[in-house]
Amino acid sequence: MRRVAILSYGMTKVEKHWKRSLRALFGDAAKNSLKDLDIPGLDALIVGNMCASDLSDQNNIGALLADHLGILPATAYRVEAACGSGGAAFLAAYAAVASGMYDFVMTGGVEKLSDGVGGHTTLSLGKAADAEYELFFGSSFVSLNALIMNRYMHVYHAPRECFADFAVLMHKNGAKNPFAQLPFEITRDTVINSDWIADPITLYDCAPVGDGAAAVVLCPLEAAQKYSDNYVEVLGVAGATDTIDVASRSDILSLNSTVVAANKAYKMAKLIPRDIDVAEIHDTFTITGALSLEGLGFCEKGKFNKALSDGVFETGGMVSVNPSGGLKSRGHPVGATGSYQIAEITMQLMGKADKMQVPDAKIGLAQNIGGSGASTYATILRRAK
Amino acid sequence: MRRVAILSYGMTKVEKHWKRSLRALFGDAAKNSLKDLDIPGLDALIVGNMCASDLSDQNNIGALLADHLGILPATAYRVEAACGSGGAAFLAAYAAVASGMYDFVMTGGVEKLSDGVGGHTTLSLGKAADAEYELFFGSSFVSLNALIMNRYMHVYHAPRECFADFAVLMHKNGAKNPFAQLPFEITRDTVINSDWIADPITLYDCAPVGDGAAAVVLCPLEAAQKYSDNYVEVLGVAGATDTIDVASRSDILSLNSTVVAANKAYKMAKLIPRDIDVAEIHDTFTITGALSLEGLGFCEKGKFNKALSDGVFETGGMVSVNPSGGLKSRGHPVGATGSYQIAEITMQLMGKADKMQVPDAKIGLAQNIGGSGASTYATILRRAK
Repeated sequence: MRRVAILSYGMTKVEKHWKRSLRALFGDAAKNSLKDLDIPGLDALIVGNMCASDLSDQNNIGALLADHLGILPATAYRVEAACGSGGAAFLAAYAAVASGMYDFVMTGGVEKLSDGVGGHTTLSLGKAADAEYELFFGSSFVSLNALIMNRYMHVYHAPRECFADFAVLMHKNGAKNPFAQLPFEITRDTVINSDWIADPITLYDCAPVGDGAAAVVLCPLEAAQKYSDNYVEVLGVAGATDTIDVASRSDILSLNSTVVAANKAYKMAKLIPRDIDVAEIHDTFTITGALSLEGLGFCEKGKFNKALSDGVFETGGMVSVNPSGGLKSRGHPVGATGSYQIAEITMQLMGKADKMQVPDAKIGLAQNIGGSGASTYATILRRAK
Repeated sequence: MRRVAILSYGMTKVEKHWKRSLRALFGDAAKNSLKDLDIPGLDALIVGNMCASDLSDQNNIGALLADHLGILPATAYRVEAACGSGGAAFLAAYAAVASGMYDFVMTGGVEKLSDGVGGHTTLSLGKAADAEYELFFGSSFVSLNALIMNRYMHVYHAPRECFADFAVLMHKNGAKNPFAQLPFEITRDTVINSDWIADPITLYDCAPVGDGAAAVVLCPLEAAQKYSDNYVEVLGVAGATDTIDVASRSDILSLNSTVVAANKAYKMAKLIPRDIDVAEIHDTFTITGALSLEGLGFCEKGKFNKALSDGVFETGGMVSVNPSGGLKSRGHPVGATGSYQIAEITMQLMGKADKMQVPDAKIGLAQNIGGSGASTYATILRRAK
């Protein structure tokens, strides 16, 4: 298996991109990732997206975007694993380069949620749940996660305030991110007193809906230094699944897909959670952030509250969590979120994160979830120099 | 790069599967592919699908199907390249095994088109076209292909009858296929006198709409004989793209994505078109069949009519084309079609095709298109023993 490097990254600000079409938006991120990069050409494009069929009436966006980027007749296809599409696309691209089939592969994600009128966006997002056992009975993502959050508070005697404090930390980080959708600080009261969405989840427990695109360019590690003096090595890549409906799980307070994917990625990278300097984790809701941090081994199960108040997750703490602001503040353009995470970890390891920079970040992890924990993609990267 | 084998295949009959849900339908094909196969387990599931989000309100079907098959927590995701989804999923699965990341991978496709009410299915299929430059202006797949067919007849002085004769050959083959949606013979008059869909295309120039699922199981070639004494080697796999909108092409009578993908696959397999004994090609419309055969190098450009009347494409001819009946007669469950083709070629090379069997078939090719030629996936397989 060939070792694989990331040569470059690009992204757009997450916001309501009313004036950019799906292809134009991805083009912006792709152009950024290709800036100053003198490679022979791209052999393949593997792109994550969830909602374009529903909200932009567009499928086959691999070919659409390859055409827009001017890289025809490169191999191009879409990968979909709901909100985990970006992470899954990265895994496919990694295999494509590691196998020797392709040398230069762009992988990224694009999502344009603002184009949905009426309840179309909410319905489209709901299709990440089990249509026959959850969606058709009226469950939405937020209601499922509200059940989980209530259960978590009951079982672990966790105060509602700890979830608010996690949102506060995310906004503190995101306020420094020029690409964040909600780049401002909030207080504990902002979260607790914001509108109810589904008890106990309030508006500020939720990631916002936005549009965005992000991309990275991969090549074989042995070729990387020919094209860049600041690249990143891919140490571990893994994907895992769990039941798509929440009720079928033996323990709804454990993200088993995250536990399995993380352990596979750690094993592949020959690392343990303590080795991770910086992590971009999947916090669709504040409760999802808590379960993700526990599943990744950054704190013990049920001990999220203590670790958070001990400063474990702050920039410069044991592991700097979501210096981008995470889904909560950077935003959550669903099929592109995993691509943002990998682009952001790359940016950190290249030392280009400016005000978000985690000092001396050498090893980073991205954790991207599809559905309410149905799929997880874990990616571990290392600064090459 | 590790060499890759196909250990087994499974498929369902293509029809209106009113009583099978999306997951049950794929389960049927998967179960067939696992019958009598004693492997340690499946490491990953990579599944092609186009329309489940639109017609079954379901995304993240990788996790959905992994759960249904009882293979959690295996890595699982969906690949989409419109009608080329099955071929693209195979390419991703091939890379996954060739890289060494996974040993046992199931790849297949599933599509349930019958669940679409009103015009939903037609709209959903239309999303394989360029939404902004074709679909929004009222173009449908059949109208775009009607323009191409008219142009072909004008430029090459091809008679309308040759397209009808191709449909007749496909139905002659499909009549022997227990899995075909339209398993009956027709005459030239049946085609020419059937209802107009878009002049000059009539009903019997078109592939029908149906539901179906197909799957194959891959493993490293070196491990294959441990699990089966009748397996197939993957010799060539390639994907290529063209403009998604038809009008932007320099020559609408050339399927450039097919030409490029086929040439790459031939080169990888160290073969030429003459070496192919049996081919499953993508004949959404009879004109698509003609352009595919020319693009694959099975006859010269513009010479489809002569080659067809010379018997080149008949079973036992220079290349036995679509012994399954092709999209025209076997049926076209879009995101699963490429998976059917690969399963059918595998069946032929294993000598298990019964009445459809091409005598002494050693080498086979599958050609799967997404959109009106926007993407093509070409796969070349060889009988191992």
